[in-house]
Amino acid sequence: MKFKLIISLLLLTASAVAFGQEKESRKAKKNNPAVADKGLIKVSIMYPFAEGKTFNMEYYETKHMPMVAGFLGSNLVRYTIEKGVASGIPNQPLPYMAIGTFYVKSLSDYQAAIGPNRDAIRADFSNYTNIAPVILISEVVK
Amino acid sequence: MKFKLIISLLLLTASAVAFGQEKESRKAKKNNPAVADKGLIKVSIMYPFAEGKTFNMEYYETKHMPMVAGFLGSNLVRYTIEKGVASGIPNQPLPYMAIGTFYVKSLSDYQAAIGPNRDAIRADFSNYTNIAPVILISEVVK
Repeated sequence: MKFKLIISLLLLTASAVAFGQEKESRKAKKNNPAVADKGLIKVSIMYPFAEGKTFNMEYYETKHMPMVAGFLGSNLVRYTIEKGVASGIPNQPLPYMAIGTFYVKSLSDYQAAIGPNRDAIRADFSNYTNIAPVILISEVVK
Repeated sequence: MKFKLIISLLLLTASAVAFGQEKESRKAKKNNPAVADKGLIKVSIMYPFAEGKTFNMEYYETKHMPMVAGFLGSNLVRYTIEKGVASGIPNQPLPYMAIGTFYVKSLSDYQAAIGPNRDAIRADFSNYTNIAPVILISEVVK
């Protein structure tokens, strides 16, 4: 009888471990960009460098991008910010001062969320830059 | 005595579970781009769209990018590929047909690894595109 009890307890614990690992595995998959990003829509807002152009990265990171991200709701998977450092081709000017990207599940949901907020987003531009951005819609292949 | 055995077995299993979760948690952190990418160097190879320009995504994904990634060794954290779909600004042409990126720990290690292989990389361009790429070196802020 006691032997049966030990076996039952061990089996129960083993199931709990297996369940926990399955959950962690799904979480790791969700957090692994190589697996999770494929097929997502990526919206890249790229700020070209030129003489006399300015960009306030601190405002962009702490105010502008969180504001826009807030409009996107659960359609937004994540967003990124990068600071341009140099051209990768010697003797070429820096192509972009900064790039912000939004990884979203649906392009039409993104457009529906941005539409009514476009004026607020554009009005905020002058708080951090005098650059007119280039915007690329792309699909994550890998 | 049997009771002590049960307790010991359960404690042992519990430790194994805790150890496993700690390992998974570290793995999840490593795989979470929001945490892992900050501070990395990102090299973006961007292929501008224009009339008459061609790009073979299948070759790029299965041959070219894996070849370049192979040159980078452990300095490479991950690489991504995206396919340009449209401009995000109405009535503007598609800015880029494709973008490939390498997330690396060190820019100087990247340059040291690419240098001796530059001819091989350039010779492969004609196998998938007739576009001269724009290359941006940037720093991941978020």
